[in-house]
Amino acid sequence: MAKRDGGKRKRKAPESAPAPEPSLRDVLRIPEGERIDLTAYDARATPAGPTGKAAGLAATAALGPRLAELQERLYASSTGGDRRRLLLVLQGMDTSGKGGTVKHVIGLFNPSGCRIRAFKAPTQEERNHPFLWRIMRALPQPGEIGIFDRSHYEDVLIARVRDLVPRRQVGRRYGQINRFEKSLAEDGVTVVKVFLHLSYEEQRARLLERLDDPDKHWKFNEGDIGERALWPAYRQAYEIALERCTTDEAPWYLVPADRKWYRNWAVSRLLLEHLEALDPKYPPGDFDVAECRARLLAT
Amino acid sequence: MAKRDGGKRKRKAPESAPAPEPSLRDVLRIPEGERIDLTAYDARATPAGPTGKAAGLAATAALGPRLAELQERLYASSTGGDRRRLLLVLQGMDTSGKGGTVKHVIGLFNPSGCRIRAFKAPTQEERNHPFLWRIMRALPQPGEIGIFDRSHYEDVLIARVRDLVPRRQVGRRYGQINRFEKSLAEDGVTVVKVFLHLSYEEQRARLLERLDDPDKHWKFNEGDIGERALWPAYRQAYEIALERCTTDEAPWYLVPADRKWYRNWAVSRLLLEHLEALDPKYPPGDFDVAECRARLLAT
Repeated sequence: MAKRDGGKRKRKAPESAPAPEPSLRDVLRIPEGERIDLTAYDARATPAGPTGKAAGLAATAALGPRLAELQERLYASSTGGDRRRLLLVLQGMDTSGKGGTVKHVIGLFNPSGCRIRAFKAPTQEERNHPFLWRIMRALPQPGEIGIFDRSHYEDVLIARVRDLVPRRQVGRRYGQINRFEKSLAEDGVTVVKVFLHLSYEEQRARLLERLDDPDKHWKFNEGDIGERALWPAYRQAYEIALERCTTDEAPWYLVPADRKWYRNWAVSRLLLEHLEALDPKYPPGDFDVAECRARLLAT
Repeated sequence: MAKRDGGKRKRKAPESAPAPEPSLRDVLRIPEGERIDLTAYDARATPAGPTGKAAGLAATAALGPRLAELQERLYASSTGGDRRRLLLVLQGMDTSGKGGTVKHVIGLFNPSGCRIRAFKAPTQEERNHPFLWRIMRALPQPGEIGIFDRSHYEDVLIARVRDLVPRRQVGRRYGQINRFEKSLAEDGVTVVKVFLHLSYEEQRARLLERLDDPDKHWKFNEGDIGERALWPAYRQAYEIALERCTTDEAPWYLVPADRKWYRNWAVSRLLLEHLEALDPKYPPGDFDVAECRARLLAT
């Protein structure tokens, strides 16, 4: 991932070979087994792909039809017994663009195959259950694309920062999350966890924008300022979560999110790469085409 | 609504007045208290709006931003306590385009504010409950747009045609549905019921298309041919349902569906008219803007 220091250089491809399209998964993936220092990552970076807004918007729009077709194949495949599905987990500080990503990226898909859930503060009933209970109930079905706007990670983020549960309990949750996500993977769920990396300065600008436009006042909450005061504690909580919960089965991807057009392109592209890796196929029919044709033509 | 005989002629507007945009709701609304004969309605008609495919596609695309903005206002308004929401009910024969309408029309909205439910044959648990139980559980929340691909009307359609319950029980359901929808209206739900009117010939063509394209075999079911054999019984069941369940609180709209581009335009336009009638407003903030600004700038 593009750290401020430039990150690792890629090896040059042999001159005769066509330049391969770099895998964004490799570029954005949080390294396993390393200490994570979020201040080392530039939130305005464009570590791969388009480098300007116009090109970025065009590239994202161009991904739309490919995404929609792969989604249709995934859904079609499920009607033939394929249990695979995809779950996009969106996390990030307030105003990092979780909602905007759903609008612009998930808006490229057929809405009937998307199962979207925004997790708010848990209800009394949800608090009476283990923290993964409400998550389980919102999982995508085979063939669907699930989208979590916030997720079970809130239970190691705000729960840690605000001391909502004893620290020891938070400590146990990382392992519980990893085991849960491993089970999901075994059950055919491709979990794509995206951390929308926003800078402190950009958050201020976005909050001010909401304040300055009466049509955006409904998005503003006085509590947002209080949360912002806890920025360093949240950053640390994210660093720990990214560090402990990047696994082979469910790695974290860090998407620079200060530029909305780049965020949208990067998430679209990540989804495309995962769907292409799944390579779902239209299932064959279980009927005699010629006979059905003849019967139909007789009607 | 445009019947085959040409329907009622509109009165000419006085020459000096600009031609008012006709309300599609008035044009497509099933008349109350009349016998309905579906054979009198042309499924290829374009009773108002664009009359050609290119113009129709462009007109639908042009509605997108207006629909999305009204949806955002509706959602925003709910955060201020407004309980209003919209529920689109899609019914129609097999291949009439319920799924296509969700893809192309609901695809114009922000997916995070849409609550989509496709009703299949009821599960054992659903059958153990009153027929409206599963419907209640799928209703949109305040500020949302709900979409039913099939609905409680199946319980007076296939249930009637296939004698799934005693005829007397079917007979009671029309009144139950009307009372249920009246309660919804009282609770702030704008119910928009759309019957996608397909011709017998077009259904054959669409089923053949699915047979002739291996990538569409997953959409084909041998049982579809058997259902098609019951076309007259289904038509009659629809006529009864449209007749008995068109009420002031929740009227039925008949959308000619043989032309997909017209169907998409008409449903989009119907949704626009209903959302414009709701005229949702961004709610005012409950905070001191100047003070919040100052606090933010200090961070």
